[in-house]
Amino acid sequence: MSKQITIIGAGLVGSLLAALLGKRGYQVNVYERRADIRNANISAGKSINMACSTRGWKALDLVGAGDKVRKAAIAMNGRMMHGIDESLTFQPYGKENEAIYSISRAGLNQILIDHADEYENVNFQFEHKCIDIDLDRTIASFELNDNETKYVESDLIFGTDGAFSAVRSVMQKLKHFNFSQEYISHDYKELSIEAKNGEFQMEKHALHIWPRGSHMLIALPNPDGSFTCTLFLPYEGENSFEKLNNESEIEAFFKSKFPDAFKLIPNLIELFNENPTSPLVIIKCFPWSYKGKVTLIGDASHGIVPFYGQGMNAGFEDVSILNELMDQHGDNWIELFQEFENSRKPDADAIADLALKNFIEMRDLVGQEWFLKRKKIERALYETFPERFIPQYSMVSFTNTPYSEAVRKGNQQDLILDELVNKEDILDIIERGDFKSFVETNHMIPN
Amino acid sequence: MSKQITIIGAGLVGSLLAALLGKRGYQVNVYERRADIRNANISAGKSINMACSTRGWKALDLVGAGDKVRKAAIAMNGRMMHGIDESLTFQPYGKENEAIYSISRAGLNQILIDHADEYENVNFQFEHKCIDIDLDRTIASFELNDNETKYVESDLIFGTDGAFSAVRSVMQKLKHFNFSQEYISHDYKELSIEAKNGEFQMEKHALHIWPRGSHMLIALPNPDGSFTCTLFLPYEGENSFEKLNNESEIEAFFKSKFPDAFKLIPNLIELFNENPTSPLVIIKCFPWSYKGKVTLIGDASHGIVPFYGQGMNAGFEDVSILNELMDQHGDNWIELFQEFENSRKPDADAIADLALKNFIEMRDLVGQEWFLKRKKIERALYETFPERFIPQYSMVSFTNTPYSEAVRKGNQQDLILDELVNKEDILDIIERGDFKSFVETNHMIPN
Repeated sequence: MSKQITIIGAGLVGSLLAALLGKRGYQVNVYERRADIRNANISAGKSINMACSTRGWKALDLVGAGDKVRKAAIAMNGRMMHGIDESLTFQPYGKENEAIYSISRAGLNQILIDHADEYENVNFQFEHKCIDIDLDRTIASFELNDNETKYVESDLIFGTDGAFSAVRSVMQKLKHFNFSQEYISHDYKELSIEAKNGEFQMEKHALHIWPRGSHMLIALPNPDGSFTCTLFLPYEGENSFEKLNNESEIEAFFKSKFPDAFKLIPNLIELFNENPTSPLVIIKCFPWSYKGKVTLIGDASHGIVPFYGQGMNAGFEDVSILNELMDQHGDNWIELFQEFENSRKPDADAIADLALKNFIEMRDLVGQEWFLKRKKIERALYETFPERFIPQYSMVSFTNTPYSEAVRKGNQQDLILDELVNKEDILDIIERGDFKSFVETNHMIPN
Repeated sequence: MSKQITIIGAGLVGSLLAALLGKRGYQVNVYERRADIRNANISAGKSINMACSTRGWKALDLVGAGDKVRKAAIAMNGRMMHGIDESLTFQPYGKENEAIYSISRAGLNQILIDHADEYENVNFQFEHKCIDIDLDRTIASFELNDNETKYVESDLIFGTDGAFSAVRSVMQKLKHFNFSQEYISHDYKELSIEAKNGEFQMEKHALHIWPRGSHMLIALPNPDGSFTCTLFLPYEGENSFEKLNNESEIEAFFKSKFPDAFKLIPNLIELFNENPTSPLVIIKCFPWSYKGKVTLIGDASHGIVPFYGQGMNAGFEDVSILNELMDQHGDNWIELFQEFENSRKPDADAIADLALKNFIEMRDLVGQEWFLKRKKIERALYETFPERFIPQYSMVSFTNTPYSEAVRKGNQQDLILDELVNKEDILDIIERGDFKSFVETNHMIPN
């Protein structure tokens, strides 16, 4: 008889996993706390946008959902920095055809649930709030909307219920379960720039950034011509959410900090007051599984900050890796989950660190001259030595290189870049076409 | 009207705090999950022993309980290391009259509950398990033994319910509440060496250590002539609890690793099988308080490993510091709790690190020649420059120097000791009486 599998959480990772396990022939029941997102009326401008990149596409294609998602996604080929003087600077993410893809969370989630739901052996149940798990007997308890409790027994339980995972909160009571939740100093708030006569009001194929040192605004495009904006501010202190308490404070802040964006958001006050201010948390734990019976994947085991655009991609990569391990281990779930958590943990920690580091890059460094110079040198190295120098951002976003390896190689690259950026005439050398011989003569590139 | 205060947890810190708040005239209700420890029949040999030092005594004296505790405590003037060849090496903790004091947890807890209970305005209720807190309304919910739920409203709630705090688990759901639980690789198990004809079978005034590199056994004296022993082993891998599964494995392990102790524990197998194997966890969180209404103190906010003998002392010091802040802030609890957590957090983190570091010292370094040489030099520095060089262990155990300052000064001392320990003839110099001039000539001591 085929194994019965319970998935708790029908978010992005849960519904993708459901499709994979459905495809592999398991009996899959997915339980979700919220109502069916497919029936909810969610306007594009009010849902967070994701940036899908190579790791994400690999997993989506694995379950055959890639093309459905591509139709709803918009390529972003680089960053568009908005200066405080309303100047624009574009910096490409990678080579000419490389891009990360903007897609709304709600839209993507709907596609994935629909996709998994096509399998007869996959079944979704909404408005089921997980309130307890009997780990040894793999029995999950759910509270339904009528306050009834439902008990579901199965062979395996996957906790894909996100950063505030109910499954993990049960595992947290286990002896030897290491866990941390760490909030960063910034909260965020969604805003939006609407389309004008159905047209985009800014460059469509870019991720827009207003880098202001201690804080920033970003905007990602939607197919309807709008942009989903996210404002990141400290929750207390200078230039913080705590300091924006009324119409005039909010307006004055936007006018002085993001003058061009301010003109594009006529309903700023309304959006600011209606949309919640939400915290940003980093989740780490170990082990991720219990006796081959229960495991956590995605944000439930490794929740990160959004600044590398890798949270979803990392969760989707979990699914690709699980797929490979299922090929190797068959139904030996104890071995499979242990190999998964042991091999994956260093990569999860690596992308957690990179994401935090990238916050400083996005909110501060991209607005600085020397940093853009450094990026130009990095780009020249990539173009001159495409096999020997792949920039860290490209490794993370456009390859499936393990995150921990991208960190190691990035550290080596930093040493080279530190040296090159200090050569005053380096940009001239690049422009003259002497870069290759300069770098080789000075033994500045790893083999 | 006097403030109503709820204390959750009648352990060591909870009952000491109850005495302090009772003395200050508050209406105090203490709720404890377990039965009244004063009625429980606990033999000394089966409860963990604490090592009370200066910070502990300061707080005990503050509430007038010091002399009651002194009568039940035994001075330990130093470490007695037991070699694998049954050799003994004694290393004093401090100056001649300096000692840390062995006392059973249960005995101390009984004294403190009795002491607090003498105040008419302090009331203890046992078998009340905290199951929820309404933080904003300061209402605590308790499950009683008959499965009834009791709701208690008060002005202030103190969570003194230890490393697995129920109060903290409610606060963990708050936005911006940082939290981590980290288990170390070792578990522990209590054992005991009984008295023989009412006499101690080893040196009474010492903390006995069998340092074996990756693991260790320790023993602390009790007034009845027995020693409470604790075995610290990794929970898996080589020389671990996982590997000791039957009589012959346990006996062979003890015979080869702790030959002299083995002869003194005739009921080893019985004790080993009866006593639980328990984990060791480090707890960190922040903030510790909520809106001047609820705060965590002791292990609930900063649980540490036992290897510096400072867990209880740090919790008791929390009470001393709260007392000083109550003098300063009166009933402004928001300010008081914020000042408490902001000033105390660096010290809590410092002792957490020191305690972990001391595990390596106890299980490994104290068994090594060069380390004992280093300790002799440290002692010589202390004796020669008593004002300018107070060893870190003495600062932590025999003064009220903030833990974070002890870390800073300890790091400076390490540099000096690193240098001196490499002088081959340094012990000769000390013996010849030339140490003072040698150190001064070489400018090796801070002013």
